[in-house]
Amino acid sequence: MLKHNFSAGPCILPQEVFKKAAAAVLNFNDLSILEISHRSKDFVSVMEKAQSLALEHLGLTGKGYKALFLGGGASMQFLMVAYNLLEKKAAYLNTGTWADKAIKEAKMFGEVIEVASSKADNYNHIPKGYVIPEDVDYFHFQTNNTIFGTQMQYTPDVSVPLICDMSSDIFSRQRDFEKYDLIYAGAQKNMGPAGTTLIVVKEDILGKVSRQIPSMLDYRTHISKDSMFNTPPVFPIYVSMLTLEWLKENGGIDAIEKLNNQKAALIYNEIDRNELFNGFVKEKEDRSAMNATFVLNDSAHTAAFDAMWKEAGINGLNGHRSVGGYRASMYNALTLESVQTLVDVMQQLEKNA
Amino acid sequence: MLKHNFSAGPCILPQEVFKKAAAAVLNFNDLSILEISHRSKDFVSVMEKAQSLALEHLGLTGKGYKALFLGGGASMQFLMVAYNLLEKKAAYLNTGTWADKAIKEAKMFGEVIEVASSKADNYNHIPKGYVIPEDVDYFHFQTNNTIFGTQMQYTPDVSVPLICDMSSDIFSRQRDFEKYDLIYAGAQKNMGPAGTTLIVVKEDILGKVSRQIPSMLDYRTHISKDSMFNTPPVFPIYVSMLTLEWLKENGGIDAIEKLNNQKAALIYNEIDRNELFNGFVKEKEDRSAMNATFVLNDSAHTAAFDAMWKEAGINGLNGHRSVGGYRASMYNALTLESVQTLVDVMQQLEKNA
Repeated sequence: MLKHNFSAGPCILPQEVFKKAAAAVLNFNDLSILEISHRSKDFVSVMEKAQSLALEHLGLTGKGYKALFLGGGASMQFLMVAYNLLEKKAAYLNTGTWADKAIKEAKMFGEVIEVASSKADNYNHIPKGYVIPEDVDYFHFQTNNTIFGTQMQYTPDVSVPLICDMSSDIFSRQRDFEKYDLIYAGAQKNMGPAGTTLIVVKEDILGKVSRQIPSMLDYRTHISKDSMFNTPPVFPIYVSMLTLEWLKENGGIDAIEKLNNQKAALIYNEIDRNELFNGFVKEKEDRSAMNATFVLNDSAHTAAFDAMWKEAGINGLNGHRSVGGYRASMYNALTLESVQTLVDVMQQLEKNA
Repeated sequence: MLKHNFSAGPCILPQEVFKKAAAAVLNFNDLSILEISHRSKDFVSVMEKAQSLALEHLGLTGKGYKALFLGGGASMQFLMVAYNLLEKKAAYLNTGTWADKAIKEAKMFGEVIEVASSKADNYNHIPKGYVIPEDVDYFHFQTNNTIFGTQMQYTPDVSVPLICDMSSDIFSRQRDFEKYDLIYAGAQKNMGPAGTTLIVVKEDILGKVSRQIPSMLDYRTHISKDSMFNTPPVFPIYVSMLTLEWLKENGGIDAIEKLNNQKAALIYNEIDRNELFNGFVKEKEDRSAMNATFVLNDSAHTAAFDAMWKEAGINGLNGHRSVGGYRASMYNALTLESVQTLVDVMQQLEKNA
């Protein structure tokens, strides 16, 4: 088995989650989890537990939010956000490829004000000093940009509904979650396998646009049916529930944030110290604790480095094609030991050079 | 373990598929299938194999069709079909709850001509003798109605594009698949677990509506990216591929259709012979080989019958709330032995009465 999976997503999940998931495929209350009815009490209780754990981890229980687990991916949310919330105009921050795609979809539904963009710099930093107009229907942004390895370290102060794609750093660190009106996240980073998307939405922001919304795209449809309007992606939701349970058993977001900060410090210290490497992100304050992007200063070392990390049992270290180099994705389930293994390889390369 | 799973869907899959799926959760080329990148060559080959097997089983390889495995469920297709194909008006046949929902969504995009409906009779038959106008953008119908246990035994002859929801009987019997321009099916009956939907579409019917289509709802987006525009539901697609492989190893649709007909004959003969029971579907020719719906003529036997089939290891026999009584769903992976077990229980009840 490859021990050190640095994949950008779908990505590593806790080993005990894999074991429980495999066991449930063979036997989950006398049936396979793959053949149970989504209306069975066994699955209804999985769905309820996944929803309540998601709200609990975010500190949003009893505060007017609903948690939904839908199919379709976060890309479907680019569309659903605009369909449900964009009446006249909305403000978007353009911090990466996915932000750019969200903006493209929203433009079909109204005016989009791009408050700032780092696109011209290949998204190597998070824009600063932008102004969010007060007359927009909402402000939309991404907390973490997997491809480029940047992360917003703060929550913007706004007077309009705050809508956020947290696909690649949800449940990895604390934020002032109560400031958000709608949070969405594809499962396949810190929450579960590919195939479901979590939406946490404050009910009182819905029902304010004048357009007719198709049933499947209307958040109110899914809220009214407790996320069971149609057959949900049963197994991805079950594995998400297992992962949220694992997070709770291991101290929740507070504990995992400390570990994630240790992992990030370990790799970034090495990138800064080791003269063979250079970080991709321009400003240190914008560096992501989830995805560390870096390059070899001299491509002459590429073949040796690639052979060495593969030999060490590391997987998924190649950077995204639009950035190149390397990307160490360090989601919740990746251990400090895995990051240390990578750092050891980087140091060994330096010694050999 | 419950041996005889008659669930209406999600439903039984082949036991060897469960075993292979569980093994892949633990180890799929040295990683868990749940943690591999969808861009990895291992998963790209899963996707390609699932697509080619789907087309091969339907006899549509090399005939201008593309196979897509998307998230979101068949309910999303009610919307996507209309978004992509409905310019002015479309014709729909109303044979059940899901047909009714498809009609509701299509009405947002244009005029819908309901060519016939059995709604007033609680969908206990398939309407006959209807006329499909020649000036519509397409004709849409469902082949099988899970809730009511009816099934279309023929393919309508039309001069307009033929669009079909085959969610509950795809891969269970031969049809003249080449007559269809777009077939869709939620995986969770004969193809795999909940969480992905197969769309088989003839490319030349696309691109003819004037409206702008959001990226995620545009079939052309997904075709242009080989069903990988965004992160697909990796595990549901993998299990679908396993199930399509199992079908091929077991003689394909021709062989399974024979078995399905044997199973259907066994249960319907008993329903007709046993005076304690009565079928729900009005016309025998409309009976579904997938879902046999029936009631006890005297509710005094209910408690005894329910206890007996549960004792026999049968699961999921309760009818849908809108029909009541019982529903024996006999998808591809359900064995003849399971149907025989149910028939034995029905006969034992008769003896005891």
